Parts: sequence; C-alpha cells; structure tokens
Amino acid sequence: MSLLVVGSVAFDAIETPFGKADRILGGAATYFSVAASYFTHVSLVGIVGEDFTEKDAAVFKGRRIDTTGLERAPGKTFFWAGRYSENMNERTTLATELNVFAEFKPLLPEPYRKSEYIFLANIDPTLQRSVLHQVTRRPKVVALDTMNYWIERTPEELRETLRHTHILMINDAETRQLSNEHNLLRAARHIFKLGPKVLVIKRGEYGAMMVHSRHAFTVPAFPLEQVHDPTGAGDSFAGGFMGYLASAGRVNEAELRRAMVYGSVMGSYTVEKFGLDRLRSLKRSEIHQRARHFSKLTQFTL
Amino acid sequence: MSLLVVGSVAFDAIETPFGKADRILGGAATYFSVAASYFTHVSLVGIVGEDFTEKDAAVFKGRRIDTTGLERAPGKTFFWAGRYSENMNERTTLATELNVFAEFKPLLPEPYRKSEYIFLANIDPTLQRSVLHQVTRRPKVVALDTMNYWIERTPEELRETLRHTHILMINDAETRQLSNEHNLLRAARHIFKLGPKVLVIKRGEYGAMMVHSRHAFTVPAFPLEQVHDPTGAGDSFAGGFMGYLASAGRVNEAELRRAMVYGSVMGSYTVEKFGLDRLRSLKRSEIHQRARHFSKLTQFTL
Repeated sequence: MSLLVVGSVAFDAIETPFGKADRILGGAATYFSVAASYFTHVSLVGIVGEDFTEKDAAVFKGRRIDTTGLERAPGKTFFWAGRYSENMNERTTLATELNVFAEFKPLLPEPYRKSEYIFLANIDPTLQRSVLHQVTRRPKVVALDTMNYWIERTPEELRETLRHTHILMINDAETRQLSNEHNLLRAARHIFKLGPKVLVIKRGEYGAMMVHSRHAFTVPAFPLEQVHDPTGAGDSFAGGFMGYLASAGRVNEAELRRAMVYGSVMGSYTVEKFGLDRLRSLKRSEIHQRARHFSKLTQFTL
Repeated sequence: MSLLVVGSVAFDAIETPFGKADRILGGAATYFSVAASYFTHVSLVGIVGEDFTEKDAAVFKGRRIDTTGLERAPGKTFFWAGRYSENMNERTTLATELNVFAEFKPLLPEPYRKSEYIFLANIDPTLQRSVLHQVTRRPKVVALDTMNYWIERTPEELRETLRHTHILMINDAETRQLSNEHNLLRAARHIFKLGPKVLVIKRGEYGAMMVHSRHAFTVPAFPLEQVHDPTGAGDSFAGGFMGYLASAGRVNEAELRRAMVYGSVMGSYTVEKFGLDRLRSLKRSEIHQRARHFSKLTQFTL
C-alpha cells in the first residue's frame, strides 16, 4: 500500500555524551522514510536547499523511497543543533535555522495523491491540512505528529487538522499539554473528542502506549546498554509503525499492536548509533530478530 | 510455602489531591502481608506501640497472616506523614517519628525460623541481616528492599547484606544510586556482582522491569483513570510478587514473570483508594481478572 510522508529533511549538529557530529543528515521525514522503507514503498514530500548534495540524497537511493516530491529550493537546508544531557533525559536546542523550510508549501506530485496511508510529520498544522486537501481519494489512515509549539501557538489550526486525523502520535508531555489533563487515559478520552480514534503516546526510555476506545496496549523501550544518540527515535518509531501498517493493508487490533512493536524496533535501532548510521544499515533479518526479542521481553502466560 | 516478612507497621498521615487522612494504618510489612496473604501464608515480624488497637490489628485477622512475631512495645507506633504533588509524581515527607521502631530488634518466633521465602522490607541492613542469622534452614528466596538513606549512610552494611540476597527489589533512582550507573542494564550487571541474581526495578507509573543474567522482562503499570493514593504501591507489589512465588513453590523464568504480573496487579489495586482500603477488600476473582487485563495490555503475536 502507498505510504506518503510530509515533513522535514534537515542537517543536524548533535552533541551527546558519546560524541559529536557537526552536520549530519536528519529531519523527521528522513528518519520516517528510511524506517518505513523496510516495510513498504514510501512517497516523500519535503524541501531541501542548494547545500543538499547527491551524497546526502544517497540515503534514499536503493530503497523503496520515491523522492519526486522532495523539492529543491534556492537557499540552505533546514538546520538544527542540539545537545543531550549526561543521561540523555534532556536536550537543549542550540540552534534552529529554518532556511528553505520557512517557505515550505507541500506540493504532492500527481501519483502521490492517491496515497492510502499518510503520515504528517511535525510541521505547521495548516500545512498538514493542505496535504490532505491535495489527496484525491479518502485515505485509509491519516497519522499526525505535532509539538508544544503548535499546541501553544496555533491551537485552532491544530484542532481543525485533528478533525481529519485517525492516529495521533505524540509524546506524553504533548498529550498532557494538548488535553490539559495529566492522567493519560483521561487525556486520551479528551483527544478522541477532537477527531483521532487512536492515540499513540511515545514515552522515550519507557516505551510507548496506544489507546483507542476502551483498549490500551503498551510496549516497553528495548533495554539497551548504550544509547548513543536519541535523535530521530520518535520519527523512526512512526516510520516503523506506519510502514508496517501499510504493508499489512488492514487496520485492526492485532495489526495495530504489531505496528507498535515494529515502531519500537526501528526506534531502538536508531538510537544505537549517531544520526541515521544504524537505521540505514539494517538488515530485514535484524528487524525480525528484534521483534522477537520484544516478545521475549514482554510475554508471559498466566 | 512459608513466607516471612520483616518490616514496618505504621500509622500514616497522607495528603493527595484526592483527599486527606490523618492517621491510617500503613507500613511496608502491612501492605506486603495483606497483599501476599491472597496467595500464601505469611509470617509477620514487626513492632507496634501501645496505641495500636485491636481495631488496627483487624486488618490481619481472617487472613493467612501469623502475627505472633508482631511485637508490642511501650511507646507509640512508627508514624509517617507525607504529601503528594498534584500529579502524584513527587512526595514530600512532612514527618517521620520512629517511636518504638527506633529500638526494633527483629526476633523470629521459633516456627518462623524455617521460612523458605523471606522478604526483608526497607529497614537498617544490619537488622535485615540479623533476620537471616535467625533462619535455621537455607531459604529458597531472600528478597530485599532498601532506600537512599541506607545506600548513603551504611553502604558497607548494605553490601554485606546484599551478599545473602537473591532478589533485590528497588526503584530506578535507588538502582542508579546503588550502582553509580544510569543505564539500567549496566546497573543490573554491577548489582549482580554484589550478590543478587535477580534485580526487580520498580518504576512507578511506568511499571516494573526484571533483569537477571542476560534476560530482561518488563511489565507496565496498569493504566488507571484515577490514582487516589500511591502509598504502599511498591510494598503491595512486593507482596504480590513474593506471595505468588511462594505459592508457586518453584523459581524459574515463567514463575518469576507471573510473579511480576501479580505484583503489578496488587500494586495497581492499592493505589485505587486510600491506604489499605482497596487492598484489604479484594476478591480473588478480581486479582485474576486484572492479571488477565495485564495480558490484554501487553500481549501481541508476530
């Protein structure tokens, strides 16, 4: 099934206790696409500047990623710099240079307009909605990520976009902020009134929780002895989740649970090395192996 | 199988966003005993003062709890007062009056000395060790809880006691403090060198994780719409865990996992009401029902 992602492609400068990178490829749509491409064909919509070279684009090559929708504009590519604390629990943004991303107006190439699975990565909710207006067929699944900035600054626009969203995929702080409710089950109930039928809460080192109607499902983070760089973990999770779901072609309880597991698998691999280093070099056998490890980590009989 | 617990019996004053109690029965050994008694026979060792009435003792009556080892001493019972923050994430201790607990010297009645399952609740590690010296038969399982106070103040005594401990059951902050290691897998490896073969890490609203040799197992906290009072959750977890394990009579991977689930079941019930109100009124059918809910919450097929 066709999976469309719209979001940022960026250069990141990252500092963690394990090392430093001055300028490596990143961005939500990048992590998402690479993760999802292990499961299905991905159509990418984003924008890069003149500093984005063939070498940078190589990450998409040889994968099931269509980059027809990756616009090249005069100027520089979106740049983000951040530093993680000793325990990786906190990160400080040192620089955000929107560059060409400031003028980003997502435009879907004709073949993308029939996409059945759509992931709207964290961008202006008005732009997210403009993507949905370009789709000519009712999509099976629209999933959306957002952040505190949009929750605070453009609450009305976000609400309007949420009305057209099936799956909201945010972290616990965002869940609490959006619903003004600390308890996650009550927060979920509030969010269901805004449109989404499924809430996927990303909880970092504690894993992820999915809530829909009256059911909840949790998956832990994979215990790793070393996390080198948490950047992109959430977007890799989203890529694994949506990639798996699109490949399954059905949306039911069992498939959503598997999507949660494959999302967690992809997130757990991403943090093992810097940037996309681990994610881009994965073998399919490693993905299945870790999914089985998630089984061992969580399964019991009564 | 016989299960021995040594720890505090106390009166608590508790303030949470859901209410206030000036003086209700509490203490680690109390929560532990009541939780464990749903699974097996419990032998309790603790100390109370003259203010501990028949009405207070009623919580132990009609259950499989032997209180021969509950000493009555001149003076007042241990008293603790605490207040939880709006989100229940933090608690402030307002008062700690040791009273008779300051002179507590655990003495095991003769029939207790053959206990095969032993839980040493959070008390002075020297006293914890004195309990083990009184046991005449090599116990099957010695589990231990401790806290920052002992980790900081009596590290050598704690180390000596840990040498005789099979299962260490502490929270994540204590795990990190004891091992001087933030990563929980590496922390576990450090702790295994001190004696314990199994580490059970209690993570509050995020559930619990068990690590032993090269395996890990996680169980989430049960998602509840309202948590009224977190007091005693960890001790109820320990009671469910050890009670189940003693009732199973075997210690293997499958039983340890079930113990994690039943521990989580008991902890999740405790927080639903103030103090022991919910825990003491449970039906066995409710315990099994929630264990099945834990299955639904975590299980998936690949």
